[in-house]
Amino acid sequence: MTAVRPVVLDAMGGDHGPAETVAGAVAARRAHGVPVVLVGDEPRVTGELRRHGAAGEIAVVHAGDAVPMAERGASAVARAASSLAVGCELVSRGEGGAFVSAGSTGAVVACASRGIGRSGGVLRPALAVALPSLAGGASVLVDAGATADPSPAMVAQFALLGVGYARAVLGRADPVVGLLSIGSEPGKGNRLTRRAAELLADLPLRFHGNVEGHDVLTGAVDVIVTDGFTGNVVLKNVEGCVRTALAMVAEAGIASPDRLAEVARRYDPETHGGAVLLGLRGSVVVAHGSSPAATIARACSVAYALAGQDPVAGVEAAAAEPVT
Amino acid sequence: MTAVRPVVLDAMGGDHGPAETVAGAVAARRAHGVPVVLVGDEPRVTGELRRHGAAGEIAVVHAGDAVPMAERGASAVARAASSLAVGCELVSRGEGGAFVSAGSTGAVVACASRGIGRSGGVLRPALAVALPSLAGGASVLVDAGATADPSPAMVAQFALLGVGYARAVLGRADPVVGLLSIGSEPGKGNRLTRRAAELLADLPLRFHGNVEGHDVLTGAVDVIVTDGFTGNVVLKNVEGCVRTALAMVAEAGIASPDRLAEVARRYDPETHGGAVLLGLRGSVVVAHGSSPAATIARACSVAYALAGQDPVAGVEAAAAEPVT
Repeated sequence: MTAVRPVVLDAMGGDHGPAETVAGAVAARRAHGVPVVLVGDEPRVTGELRRHGAAGEIAVVHAGDAVPMAERGASAVARAASSLAVGCELVSRGEGGAFVSAGSTGAVVACASRGIGRSGGVLRPALAVALPSLAGGASVLVDAGATADPSPAMVAQFALLGVGYARAVLGRADPVVGLLSIGSEPGKGNRLTRRAAELLADLPLRFHGNVEGHDVLTGAVDVIVTDGFTGNVVLKNVEGCVRTALAMVAEAGIASPDRLAEVARRYDPETHGGAVLLGLRGSVVVAHGSSPAATIARACSVAYALAGQDPVAGVEAAAAEPVT
Repeated sequence: MTAVRPVVLDAMGGDHGPAETVAGAVAARRAHGVPVVLVGDEPRVTGELRRHGAAGEIAVVHAGDAVPMAERGASAVARAASSLAVGCELVSRGEGGAFVSAGSTGAVVACASRGIGRSGGVLRPALAVALPSLAGGASVLVDAGATADPSPAMVAQFALLGVGYARAVLGRADPVVGLLSIGSEPGKGNRLTRRAAELLADLPLRFHGNVEGHDVLTGAVDVIVTDGFTGNVVLKNVEGCVRTALAMVAEAGIASPDRLAEVARRYDPETHGGAVLLGLRGSVVVAHGSSPAATIARACSVAYALAGQDPVAGVEAAAAEPVT
């Protein structure tokens, strides 16, 4: 393990701006022992730190611009002085071990993919999201939307990145990997998954074989690996279906809306640390825009855990397959 | 509209065998006015008909073999004397307008794809499943698993097949089509959906543009078109997530299991007519294995409605794209 560098936190991201992010940084440092560097409008950030009696306790790097929540893609990347751009640059230069933002996922992924180089041997980054399972734990879905058209070798690498996440964030010593497909038998699936299954069988990981759509929330495996198109459709489908099912129950008038909202919160993927972009020289944790300070602090802890391990051990082996 | 031919019903399919299927055929004929031909073990089927006082009222075609529920794929197709094979042959010869079975989806799709030729101009068949929406209606998901690696032109055809289904089964005069993708903006998606979106924009149908995973149960569009891999993952994910969400509520102890089971039944896709294989010279309705007589009768009505219209009008236009 290398010396662990601080977590770089985008102070300007999210719906609540520096008030919640700075409070989150203070909580991350004081309650969880996570070293943090804040990036954003220096006078505002320092003012917020003062409110917590933490001026001088947490380093601040100035960024004169911020990416608005509605902005993404090329126009977000074009803001060279934004807290996103400056923060990613710090990680790229090795001054931070990971990056955390509550900005829009699209903008953070675009800026980080551009601003933070890929780890050696990694073909493409992947987005990991922990889905709470009924059994009480969580499974990580990877790729949940970073790479829409991966090759089989990329999918195999996503599995290795997911294993690193399951170890660092979910605390699984030897995570079990399932390939999301149609039909549980070997050989079932589409061209991409059939080839990916062959590659996964040869990698140094515990490959369970195929899992199906109904296995996503059961905790059957620790890592659910898929391409970024299917993964993003499934992630949004999970959110939509759980919301709809709870609305059905509310409509039937057989449970109180307040109690149902509690259930919804308990199974909210966001409580498990946000979406994480893996495969870069420093993981990137995307917290939800509405995150309160405690969620920001939790995201910083996740980022710190990921920065403390080598998530890309073994990815070179999976990159041997020619990219088609 | 051509003269409507009878619905061919596999008397041997399903968990309950001829007892429920024959009762379903009698109900389809007497309650819904649907002409039915039963295919199966003639003595047993006629015996069941007698119990309903319907011997001679419904035609029976003998089949000396039956595909067990656990069997699928090549070994199911190899049973040339099965009720599945004989029934599909009747439809292929034009003696039936559609085929209904409560056998396993895998076996029925394999036998029908082999035994019933494709309609003129259709590149590949697609499986359609009606998903109940919270708003009270239903949307049809197509392809829910017949063709795992379609070309963009095939996906565009699936939309036309889905429009035919939405008209005949859901009663929509001018169905709205959404393409399942990631990101609602035009140009978002993977290679397949980006090209399919261009083709869909040129077809004679109401194309809404992209829809996302969280739109699947909202009734935002009448037809949700996708490739058979994504569609099958999503279909099973919907089932799994609704089941899990209701289990969460049960576990929280805030609603009685009986009342929750009622909610689950109300939103069960099976009440909306089963999965339908479209694009063949006679639609194939796959009812759930556990279907009681009333569900079999409903499946026969759906098959009859589909047989009464031309589900492939316009598919030739969508086939102009070279298959890659």
